[in-house]
Amino acid sequence: MINKVLIANRGEIAVRIIRACRELNIKTVAIYSTVDKESLHVMLADEAVCVGDHRLENSYLNQTAILQAALNTQAQAIHPGFGFLSENAEFVRACEQLDIQFIGPSAGVIELMGDKANARQKMIEANVPVVKGSDGLVDTFEDAIEAAKEIGFPLLIKASAGGGGKGMRACFNQDELYDAYHQAKQEAQNAFGNGDVYMEYFVQSPRHIEVQVLGDSFGHVIHLNERECSVQRNNQKMIEEAPVQNLKNETRSRLYEVAVRAAQAVNYVSAGTLEFIMDHEENFFFIEMNTRIQVEHPVTEMITGIDIVKEQIKIAEERPLEIQQIDVERKGHSLEIRINAENPIENFKPSVGKINSLHFPGGNGVRIDSFLYQNYTVLPFYDSMLAKLITYAPSRDEAMEKSIRCLEEIDIDGVDTNIEFQLDILLNESFQDNVYTTSLVKDILKEMKHV
Amino acid sequence: MINKVLIANRGEIAVRIIRACRELNIKTVAIYSTVDKESLHVMLADEAVCVGDHRLENSYLNQTAILQAALNTQAQAIHPGFGFLSENAEFVRACEQLDIQFIGPSAGVIELMGDKANARQKMIEANVPVVKGSDGLVDTFEDAIEAAKEIGFPLLIKASAGGGGKGMRACFNQDELYDAYHQAKQEAQNAFGNGDVYMEYFVQSPRHIEVQVLGDSFGHVIHLNERECSVQRNNQKMIEEAPVQNLKNETRSRLYEVAVRAAQAVNYVSAGTLEFIMDHEENFFFIEMNTRIQVEHPVTEMITGIDIVKEQIKIAEERPLEIQQIDVERKGHSLEIRINAENPIENFKPSVGKINSLHFPGGNGVRIDSFLYQNYTVLPFYDSMLAKLITYAPSRDEAMEKSIRCLEEIDIDGVDTNIEFQLDILLNESFQDNVYTTSLVKDILKEMKHV
Repeated sequence: MINKVLIANRGEIAVRIIRACRELNIKTVAIYSTVDKESLHVMLADEAVCVGDHRLENSYLNQTAILQAALNTQAQAIHPGFGFLSENAEFVRACEQLDIQFIGPSAGVIELMGDKANARQKMIEANVPVVKGSDGLVDTFEDAIEAAKEIGFPLLIKASAGGGGKGMRACFNQDELYDAYHQAKQEAQNAFGNGDVYMEYFVQSPRHIEVQVLGDSFGHVIHLNERECSVQRNNQKMIEEAPVQNLKNETRSRLYEVAVRAAQAVNYVSAGTLEFIMDHEENFFFIEMNTRIQVEHPVTEMITGIDIVKEQIKIAEERPLEIQQIDVERKGHSLEIRINAENPIENFKPSVGKINSLHFPGGNGVRIDSFLYQNYTVLPFYDSMLAKLITYAPSRDEAMEKSIRCLEEIDIDGVDTNIEFQLDILLNESFQDNVYTTSLVKDILKEMKHV
Repeated sequence: MINKVLIANRGEIAVRIIRACRELNIKTVAIYSTVDKESLHVMLADEAVCVGDHRLENSYLNQTAILQAALNTQAQAIHPGFGFLSENAEFVRACEQLDIQFIGPSAGVIELMGDKANARQKMIEANVPVVKGSDGLVDTFEDAIEAAKEIGFPLLIKASAGGGGKGMRACFNQDELYDAYHQAKQEAQNAFGNGDVYMEYFVQSPRHIEVQVLGDSFGHVIHLNERECSVQRNNQKMIEEAPVQNLKNETRSRLYEVAVRAAQAVNYVSAGTLEFIMDHEENFFFIEMNTRIQVEHPVTEMITGIDIVKEQIKIAEERPLEIQQIDVERKGHSLEIRINAENPIENFKPSVGKINSLHFPGGNGVRIDSFLYQNYTVLPFYDSMLAKLITYAPSRDEAMEKSIRCLEEIDIDGVDTNIEFQLDILLNESFQDNVYTTSLVKDILKEMKHV
């Protein structure tokens, strides 16, 4: 049994994890950088340890200091949240060596899925549909020409170490190939210290659909239904929903079957997400697996009644999953709206400053996951997400109405936010009619410039 | 179809109703007293009308001003919330005369159920179990002596116009009867302008169990499961939960059957609650029917997924209930903790003042229904309830842990609150073991004095 957890994160997800631990009567240790001393996660944890200054490598990425903090406070486990060290196999191995339980999958799985070319190969072996692409890495421009002949245009050149759109180049014809190939390689080298790239057919304006899975140490894998995350700007999700309403039942069943098979193929343990792109005919293709809790996990919690963070902890305690696939519910509809400190009018420039006044909406079917409090100062060093508004209602229409009502009621004074822009999305006809793709945000922005 | 509603209330329930209306795309009109100008319900409504000064009879009980406000703003309907005019048959008749839809039951039903002796008689006719008692009103002391012989001791003398414990006297033997009878009569006369009393056997330390019902204009009546409201101080509820876990299935089925039969017997339309007391052997007896939305309605919403305020509005639009009895869910467990501005150490003396800082907890399974905001000033003229913390989890144990976590996280600076005392109740062994009765709070207070 775990009775003390160190949370190697900050902000909203650190608060989320601390709350789950408190409800499980597990003691918590927060870590923080010098500038985060006044952060909510520090106040809510039972103990807090400063691990360095505002530079990420000195604090939230400082493995030595974080592990030392765990040892000093006698935390038996570390929850990494998302981002930071959550998908760092080296860190997981360091935990293992110190006999600290990492709340997440094994180092081996993280490593395998973190290498996109390898993950792709593994999925092909497991009979998981992937987009037509190169046979492994594309090491030279000559290989790129050969691969392009096989794949056809448009195509994507992608960093093997990448994810979330970094080190990626689209290429629409032969003439663009030379520059695209070398730029992607260079960007990958700069961003990840690894210039390996591979190539894939470019499915334009797809939908982004993902499946949440849970695996325990006894080989049981279940899925917790699907999410739609097609509202994206520059590959960053803005609004997520569960379940996906406009999907053939047949497609949905196949999605579940494929996701569980994919997770089983890598002996997946903990919470994870299989991400797919889907074309207009509901063909779907594996793009990557996130081997960690995701920002958008709450929408799945709302429709299933399952607390995914608590499940992660129970799995880390080597307890078998209590829930059977047949018991997983799929009830009602949930939307998550990310509230960011950014100015949509100035190209979503991050905004910082003191929160002078703060009012979150409440009431039936409203969940707020946030680390904000009145007089807190939003810092320039970290992610701009301030809060997640999660709504839940019997139907998608009602969840939309509720989200609109809530966005109109939120008051965050002191920083610019994307609330008005999120309202524009919610009021957009394509979104309301549930016929949108990953092009939605780009289209809305284009239209705004014309007005 | 109703497209504009006037909310004849203030505080938390006014905010609750406005939010429901917004989600239904119904325009809202708030009313307010001069001192309530800065209240949240005024800010959230589409329009707001001042109806008088801080004295209740001049504002929130001022029928003429309220009806005039509805006419001036062309509101087609009035939602009364709870308290104030919500169970005032005269007001309902005045609405009818002006062709304004009252969102609630008919004047006739309110009148019938408001007269406790009559309601008791009606329930006896409908074969609803009532406590052994007098045959109607007890008009003279001689009648009281006769009735006492029939009923036995201990007994209660209760105001027919009463409710919520006012105009009520307990009497444990013949010697106490004279004083108790005359005091109850006098108190009833003073409180309600009506000295009518009746007598009932006194079930000591019962549990308070109630059943939520919904009836439409087409004669359909369904129940939405039961609530336990035995955590009371001076007949005022403090914590409510749904469903009731420690109840034989047989008893539960009988409760539902009796509640629906009772509502049908009076052709009940709208949301209503049948309140029962229950003895140690799970015998239960009708005490009263509340012909309005109740403070504790959210716990039922959490376990059923039904929005009761929205259902009230749909019923008032003369739409048939969409939900069938068989579809009413009873899933998970929900607790409601009332957060009041009062000081438990000074005999729960109400506390007023400016809210300097405010932080409500969020996260999975947490609902906050409140009208507070930072810098709002709690006024001395109204009810002391500031907020309702509603938690929802798969089990009662988890809902308790969540409630404790949330109470520890709430920060309301500027007034005294009952948060610490509510934590004492949640941590009490009898409460945790789910073996408590309406004596729980008295017992806890007694123990505190001894420590």
